[in-house]
Amino acid sequence: MALLDEDRLFPTDGRSRDLARELYLGIKDLPILSPHGHTDPRWFAEDQAFPDPAQLIVTPDHYVFRMLCSQGVSLADLGVPRVDGGWTEADGRKIWRLFAQHYHLLRGTPSRLWLDHSFQHVFGIDRRLSADTADWYYDHIAECLARPDYRPRALFERFGIEAIATTEAATDDLRWHGMIRESGWQGRVITAYRPDAVVDPEIAGFAGNVALMGQQTGFDTATWAGYLDAHRARRAFFIAHGATSSDHGHPNARTEDLAQADAAALFAKALRGACTAEEADAFRGQMLTEMARMSLEDGLVLQIHPGSRRNHSDEVMAMFGRDKGFDIPGRTDYVTALRPLLNAVGMRADLTVILFTLDETSYARELAPLAGVYPCLRLGPPWWFHDSAEGMRRFREMTTETAGFYNTVGFNDDTRAFCSIPARHDVARRVDCSWLATLVATGRLAEDEAPELAQELTYGLAKRAYKL
Amino acid sequence: MALLDEDRLFPTDGRSRDLARELYLGIKDLPILSPHGHTDPRWFAEDQAFPDPAQLIVTPDHYVFRMLCSQGVSLADLGVPRVDGGWTEADGRKIWRLFAQHYHLLRGTPSRLWLDHSFQHVFGIDRRLSADTADWYYDHIAECLARPDYRPRALFERFGIEAIATTEAATDDLRWHGMIRESGWQGRVITAYRPDAVVDPEIAGFAGNVALMGQQTGFDTATWAGYLDAHRARRAFFIAHGATSSDHGHPNARTEDLAQADAAALFAKALRGACTAEEADAFRGQMLTEMARMSLEDGLVLQIHPGSRRNHSDEVMAMFGRDKGFDIPGRTDYVTALRPLLNAVGMRADLTVILFTLDETSYARELAPLAGVYPCLRLGPPWWFHDSAEGMRRFREMTTETAGFYNTVGFNDDTRAFCSIPARHDVARRVDCSWLATLVATGRLAEDEAPELAQELTYGLAKRAYKL
Amino acid sequence: MALLDEDRLFPTDGRSRDLARELYLGIKDLPILSPHGHTDPRWFAEDQAFPDPAQLIVTPDHYVFRMLCSQGVSLADLGVPRVDGGWTEADGRKIWRLFAQHYHLLRGTPSRLWLDHSFQHVFGIDRRLSADTADWYYDHIAECLARPDYRPRALFERFGIEAIATTEAATDDLRWHGMIRESGWQGRVITAYRPDAVVDPEIAGFAGNVALMGQQTGFDTATWAGYLDAHRARRAFFIAHGATSSDHGHPNARTEDLAQADAAALFAKALRGACTAEEADAFRGQMLTEMARMSLEDGLVLQIHPGSRRNHSDEVMAMFGRDKGFDIPGRTDYVTALRPLLNAVGMRADLTVILFTLDETSYARELAPLAGVYPCLRLGPPWWFHDSAEGMRRFREMTTETAGFYNTVGFNDDTRAFCSIPARHDVARRVDCSWLATLVATGRLAEDEAPELAQELTYGLAKRAYKL
Repeated sequence: MALLDEDRLFPTDGRSRDLARELYLGIKDLPILSPHGHTDPRWFAEDQAFPDPAQLIVTPDHYVFRMLCSQGVSLADLGVPRVDGGWTEADGRKIWRLFAQHYHLLRGTPSRLWLDHSFQHVFGIDRRLSADTADWYYDHIAECLARPDYRPRALFERFGIEAIATTEAATDDLRWHGMIRESGWQGRVITAYRPDAVVDPEIAGFAGNVALMGQQTGFDTATWAGYLDAHRARRAFFIAHGATSSDHGHPNARTEDLAQADAAALFAKALRGACTAEEADAFRGQMLTEMARMSLEDGLVLQIHPGSRRNHSDEVMAMFGRDKGFDIPGRTDYVTALRPLLNAVGMRADLTVILFTLDETSYARELAPLAGVYPCLRLGPPWWFHDSAEGMRRFREMTTETAGFYNTVGFNDDTRAFCSIPARHDVARRVDCSWLATLVATGRLAEDEAPELAQELTYGLAKRAYKL
Repeated sequence: MALLDEDRLFPTDGRSRDLARELYLGIKDLPILSPHGHTDPRWFAEDQAFPDPAQLIVTPDHYVFRMLCSQGVSLADLGVPRVDGGWTEADGRKIWRLFAQHYHLLRGTPSRLWLDHSFQHVFGIDRRLSADTADWYYDHIAECLARPDYRPRALFERFGIEAIATTEAATDDLRWHGMIRESGWQGRVITAYRPDAVVDPEIAGFAGNVALMGQQTGFDTATWAGYLDAHRARRAFFIAHGATSSDHGHPNARTEDLAQADAAALFAKALRGACTAEEADAFRGQMLTEMARMSLEDGLVLQIHPGSRRNHSDEVMAMFGRDKGFDIPGRTDYVTALRPLLNAVGMRADLTVILFTLDETSYARELAPLAGVYPCLRLGPPWWFHDSAEGMRRFREMTTETAGFYNTVGFNDDTRAFCSIPARHDVARRVDCSWLATLVATGRLAEDEAPELAQELTYGLAKRAYKL
Repeated sequence: MALLDEDRLFPTDGRSRDLARELYLGIKDLPILSPHGHTDPRWFAEDQAFPDPAQLIVTPDHYVFRMLCSQGVSLADLGVPRVDGGWTEADGRKIWRLFAQHYHLLRGTPSRLWLDHSFQHVFGIDRRLSADTADWYYDHIAECLARPDYRPRALFERFGIEAIATTEAATDDLRWHGMIRESGWQGRVITAYRPDAVVDPEIAGFAGNVALMGQQTGFDTATWAGYLDAHRARRAFFIAHGATSSDHGHPNARTEDLAQADAAALFAKALRGACTAEEADAFRGQMLTEMARMSLEDGLVLQIHPGSRRNHSDEVMAMFGRDKGFDIPGRTDYVTALRPLLNAVGMRADLTVILFTLDETSYARELAPLAGVYPCLRLGPPWWFHDSAEGMRRFREMTTETAGFYNTVGFNDDTRAFCSIPARHDVARRVDCSWLATLVATGRLAEDEAPELAQELTYGLAKRAYKL
């Protein structure tokens, strides 16, 4: 039994389905460009076998364990590590059984599609996961993982990845990227510059992080000028390790363009730990504009990922720490927030700023109108909870008419779950081809124009926007 | 001529329609669970014949008279009672003719579907309502209502209602529920605890209502501790009359978790009528958290119905009072608002808090991410203006991928219009089966999994969530 | 080769498509009512040939040049005039080639559909625009424009326009409308009263504009009473030139109903240029209510077009001025904002207030519930970025169930692009027929009711709402 429907995610009426399938067949085997994500570069540096199935598939995937948590399964029983090192389940098989027993909770979710895709395509499995098949699954996957063709580099090649970007903190030593390069392996694993911990005064350790950046670069990061120079140096270091982009995960999309003296004063206050919440917010906003100006110098593409209210549960944050599924989106304004940055550098066609959102109400109202006129702006693909068939459909329906296709940048998988990468790209390719097919079937796009757009959405736009 | 299309609300393409119809046939005759609504328990206690057709179908249904009002028909001419007892039309036939003459205004609305459903299925009517058929309709329905098989209990049984909840104020004597129980009739009519008038300092008569609750329970409700004990006692009284839930209709979703001394001080101020608007809002928010804590003691499911800006027109409020179609939804935040309650009790799997919204922008952005991780949270069905084919479709499309199916709780009819209950549940069943069929037809759900989910959405989820 | 698919914008499944096509054939040739727009009355007064193709189709259409700007094409190279009279491209053929070379950027946008429609239907073109066909297109269109049957009045008649409204400032002398009337030509070109520049203290020249209105009318506009009388007089002057409506483009939907003494004091402050931003906002809000009261006297329909954050880029505003594609929508509240006006005059069925929005989140949450109960309110059609197939579909899906069809007012093209008028109305007619077909195919509307609604949506509702 196949776990997957060959025509999944295509339109249901005959002609649209045929059009979508034909478009999909034309692009399904194109190489994967993964310009934004969170895979671990150490995997590709060391090329060790992945550990047991639970540690590969359950424990690190907050999409999965959050859903089980929502129905009363404890994170400790799922093996999620505790901040204090206290007990959590360590027996992979027990964790796997608990997961299998609750697999029905994922019905109708993208996780189900991604998991079934990796079960079928990565592990060659032909039966559904359930309490009954849990042990068979565990044994089968464990056996695969022990084989050389399931090592990270082998999978990377089998997945057809042309380039993948990981994300590292500004002060990271990028040792794994160095090791990959020195190894002679041809897989293209690049980094991305993520300076949140050195631009956000509210992140614990901010001043120490800034000081470390000073040591790393030789600039005096106690001064505003030295701090900016240190950024320049670290960006250059990242570029030398393949980076083509920076990434910024702020609570909102606020930008500022203060006079340099005011920015310097704010920075001094931030270093002293004396910023109010409002001042910290303003400083983060100022740094987005500074980063954009540096991008004009060094060519890094600037990505803004705003709007998540992180660590919503104090109890879970205290016990299990960050990134545990308790990051909840909130309303996000772009029109007022981005104006200072756009007034500073928005008309520059040699700058690329890619906007993401978790607030879909901004697609048609704010993001598409902005991207549809400012030369520097592009729209990132549907992000996080919206990396799904319905989410992608809404994105195309709400942005295409106002921003067109050429102000979008293809797909990002944005994942830590390595085996889900082909699945996620496959979903995006199917949904995009379905959208094009719908446009053709409703006379909004000529049939001969669709294949070119399918290529662009799958490959060309990402390649050019991210300079890959 | 049938008023209804047998395949109404199913997808239009062949295979999806067939799948939806098959799923629907499997669940259409399941008993009705109506865990949240506003029918009048007196109907079932006294089991008297309903009065004339206009008083059954037009005068009490704000969905209907608001639409006529929007096109210039006066509420007085429709027989809506006046606060001052002044003239309104009392002649049922005149009201009915006015309604019939404007029936085309309801084209494309859920009211039209509900009304046609009750005309066809409850009254066996085979012609469309219009000015021409107004008198025929009036006579026919009046004749039915005079028959014993159109009495409330007979209809209750004919509708296949397994359990229905009404909603009563915290100080209600629940006499009708007592009378139903004592009558020996087997129909299950239960109450729900609605304490708005004793937790909202801005409702006229707040202090008097609290004092009455003190008299009813023997606790000193002039003190915070006594006031909380009085709630406990009233909840126990409601539970003894079948209640399994409480319900809270606040202007927003704000919650608080103040120190008990601060809460006591705020309560004292509220009793004195000295609260500012902000303090009244904080007090309501505190009481949601207190209610959640009591739910952990006594097991009542907590329902939050926020976000309506009630009584928008001063003129209509002065002349006709509350609930006259002038309650308008507004933007509603959940992420920040619910945090105090969720930090207090959100990780408890033995608590059920059901969230409703009138702000659909919160489905994908806030409600599904919250319900998809907190053990205590569930999503209530589409509410009020969204209890409709499009509203239900949007709900499933925007929540399923992030919250799954199992964090939802089936359907609520939430109505005062008794004859519309089977119609409303039928709409929900058809739309849910259509959604499942769409998932199957697009390869997002296996065909063998759909019937089980159809049963859950129709019956199982409501049964378990509301402990029926 | 036809540029257009004959069945464009119809549903894709067989029966729905057949239903939609049949409905469309029944209404496609109805006259065009264009009750709100921005065509230039001088065209119809002088009836001169349009200038070259670029000046007709590219340079004045901000939908087109904004998209090219977003991909780095300079506005000056597209011939957009500069505020300072500095260089911009004047060679129509060069501009046209640049446009043609970037025509693919419009794929999937409504502009593409409107342009192809006018190319095929207005100019009889049978090949696609591209770099290769740019010169052929230019020559062909230029040749057409030189012919008498491409003069404004000839096109007006060929387009089947029964009535068109232009929009003029309150102090406009309406000379072109006078000239049209005196010419004896039968085409109905009427004006609309747009008083933004005399009601908004933040528009440059406010006090001077008010003084001019005093000179024009003989009232002492230095007083509040005289100012209101001057409005009355100008409205009467507009009505004498055919106006049936006023139009108000405020930053938000705020209304006020101040005591007249307070309004007078605010007006005095506004004339002195002493208003804070908040006071200016309150004054605009007060004037909406004053305009509504005048509408009760003189019968003008009041249109509110709120929510655009205009001139977002300082650089573009400084170089090219207003209306250059840099007007970005923002969140817009209606429920609180409109309450003062609605409490003052909202229950009057002899008043018509038409609400527009650029914030689609307000359709289902705010606008449909308000229009579905207040006698004075109607919903304007999808506006600006939402004047598109997807935009219109969302409008119907999100408003019909709560506001019905009869609280909507048909279509507005709202355009400066004369040749796009038939195209835009054709899109609206197709989408509306598709919506009706979908309702029929899913059993939500009887098949015999749909043709009447198609007539209403195309013609009757606009005719009655705008008193044409």
